[in-house]
Amino acid sequence: MSVPGTGSPLRPLWWNSSARPGGALELIDQTLLPTQVATLTCTRLEQVWEAIKSLRVRGAPAIGVAAAYGVIVGCDEAGPGDAGWSDTVGCVCDRLSTSRPTAVNLFWALDRMRRRARELAGRPWSEARAALLAEAHAIRDEDAAMCRAIGMHGQHLVPEGGGVLTHCNAGALATSEYGTALAVMYAAHEKGRRFTVYADETRPLFQGARLTAWELTQAGIDATVICDSMAAVVMREKKVQVVVTGADRIASNGDTANKIGTYGVAVLARAHGIPFYVAAPSSTFDMGIADGSAIPIEHRDPEEVRVIGGRQVAPREAACYTPAFDVTPAELIAGIITEKGIIAPVTRENVARLIGG
Amino acid sequence: MSVPGTGSPLRPLWWNSSARPGGALELIDQTLLPTQVATLTCTRLEQVWEAIKSLRVRGAPAIGVAAAYGVIVGCDEAGPGDAGWSDTVGCVCDRLSTSRPTAVNLFWALDRMRRRARELAGRPWSEARAALLAEAHAIRDEDAAMCRAIGMHGQHLVPEGGGVLTHCNAGALATSEYGTALAVMYAAHEKGRRFTVYADETRPLFQGARLTAWELTQAGIDATVICDSMAAVVMREKKVQVVVTGADRIASNGDTANKIGTYGVAVLARAHGIPFYVAAPSSTFDMGIADGSAIPIEHRDPEEVRVIGGRQVAPREAACYTPAFDVTPAELIAGIITEKGIIAPVTRENVARLIGG
Repeated sequence: MSVPGTGSPLRPLWWNSSARPGGALELIDQTLLPTQVATLTCTRLEQVWEAIKSLRVRGAPAIGVAAAYGVIVGCDEAGPGDAGWSDTVGCVCDRLSTSRPTAVNLFWALDRMRRRARELAGRPWSEARAALLAEAHAIRDEDAAMCRAIGMHGQHLVPEGGGVLTHCNAGALATSEYGTALAVMYAAHEKGRRFTVYADETRPLFQGARLTAWELTQAGIDATVICDSMAAVVMREKKVQVVVTGADRIASNGDTANKIGTYGVAVLARAHGIPFYVAAPSSTFDMGIADGSAIPIEHRDPEEVRVIGGRQVAPREAACYTPAFDVTPAELIAGIITEKGIIAPVTRENVARLIGG
Repeated sequence: MSVPGTGSPLRPLWWNSSARPGGALELIDQTLLPTQVATLTCTRLEQVWEAIKSLRVRGAPAIGVAAAYGVIVGCDEAGPGDAGWSDTVGCVCDRLSTSRPTAVNLFWALDRMRRRARELAGRPWSEARAALLAEAHAIRDEDAAMCRAIGMHGQHLVPEGGGVLTHCNAGALATSEYGTALAVMYAAHEKGRRFTVYADETRPLFQGARLTAWELTQAGIDATVICDSMAAVVMREKKVQVVVTGADRIASNGDTANKIGTYGVAVLARAHGIPFYVAAPSSTFDMGIADGSAIPIEHRDPEEVRVIGGRQVAPREAACYTPAFDVTPAELIAGIITEKGIIAPVTRENVARLIGG
């Protein structure tokens, strides 16, 4: 069983079979990082719902896994009989699906649990529960294996004695284990390579400073936090030889939506002759979208920029512009590292060849 | 007399002749912006010293003016006789010069006050005081006139109905009035042009969010605060047609040191075909320096990146990289706007022609 703060790389959530009879979902409360490493044991449905809602667990793959285990937590709380468990699964899934309305992996994981429940219809609850818990484990393990494969495909890009720059947190904390962009660094670290990761702090929510720097240092990888505005100087000073970031959605031509600031990093990397890579599972590709212009960009509450930890830094009289994501055009991307291999150069044809569609 | 929050543009400090018999130095306490607009009345030398030390007044030109007026404050507090006032001026200048050891304008202004005192040797204190106060007023007025001239030379660069991007605070708050980069925007505003200023928040100390956005909105100019990482997207979306920033030091070939993040903005502007201008008085040029590589870059306390208003955002285990400035090479600068006119293109020859040396 993984314990927070140990293991390399860590796991942000796991099923603790000895937490109580039957076990419970445990997760690192990411809202308290990096100053407190606290484990939250979820034995009630509303705890799981609140943990997802309040970003105690975040990152699309990790949310999916939390929801899958949450189905077991909710059913255990309800204590269904052999006759009624199927309805209970449905109610629990309905409730969990309201926690983060736009999280695709959440719906995907809950649909998979519902489908498995339908296959098990008529079985006694004890048997169905074991099978549903196995399904949740499978969702977790498949995600971890996919991340692991991304890391293995990309690890050679990290130069011995060099530096890597990343933006936001596409790490173990956002997935089941390993992460996507950070999987590349974990795999290079396992190979014995020494390097420094420059972590953009990633305003406005500081995922790079709070999460990426924390999980890398937990694994024994050198991490240096920089303000987002310092990336250009770090490149100019030849401190980094490669950039690797995650992705939220990738169009069929390779245009990539990711955390706001990623596009600027890609432009700066190009200007300094540094290759810019995206690491993401093939499920991130939206083959129904011709290019990045069709990807809708969420704009968030201006208060996220204006107020930091209760301290107001911008006046009320000024507007705040708050796109949550930006789109990096394929021509700025040296390659997209997937669990199936690396797409390079990033062209519509090469995307179709590896991803299908 | 300028009152905080009124006037366009505002003044960060002024001599209030009716504050008490003889008058007193008053200044906006910039550490409280943007949430509180408070005026600090300085009637004692240590108040002036502390105001400079604690960044209640900041920006090289504004510090110089505060120190000049501080000489009068210090002498008034001591109440020198006709015989001893010259020694008092010397002691007061010595004390004020310890407030911010690296501020060139501080020493320059105090030297000028000492020189004027020497010219006045033997005069009665009442006469000398009037002349020294006039000298302080002259330092202020000359700085304001220089900023004003920068604004007039550059105002045509701001397009009607367009957008301007700036980084950090090179505004009225940093000078006597008008500022340098922001003088360009104040002058365009006075001409009746309507436009929006996109203010990079400017991590780690948020001068763009706290100060630039505040002073622009006080003057009735539209300001939108963006995280530094959003500048690239704002450019790509064609929201800005020109970038104007200040400068801390300019080498004889035009290479410009300014707040960390400026270089990245310049690279992004070039990539998007947007002209990048620097606005600075001719005193900012260091003609003894061949190029930017000779400009030493201060590195600041990592805690400025790690902790924000008491909240720790990066783990102790990670390093923080904290250059306070960066150098933008001349070839990325479309022009340097000075009180004598615009240097464009930015070449060693054109710099020498306008600045001399």
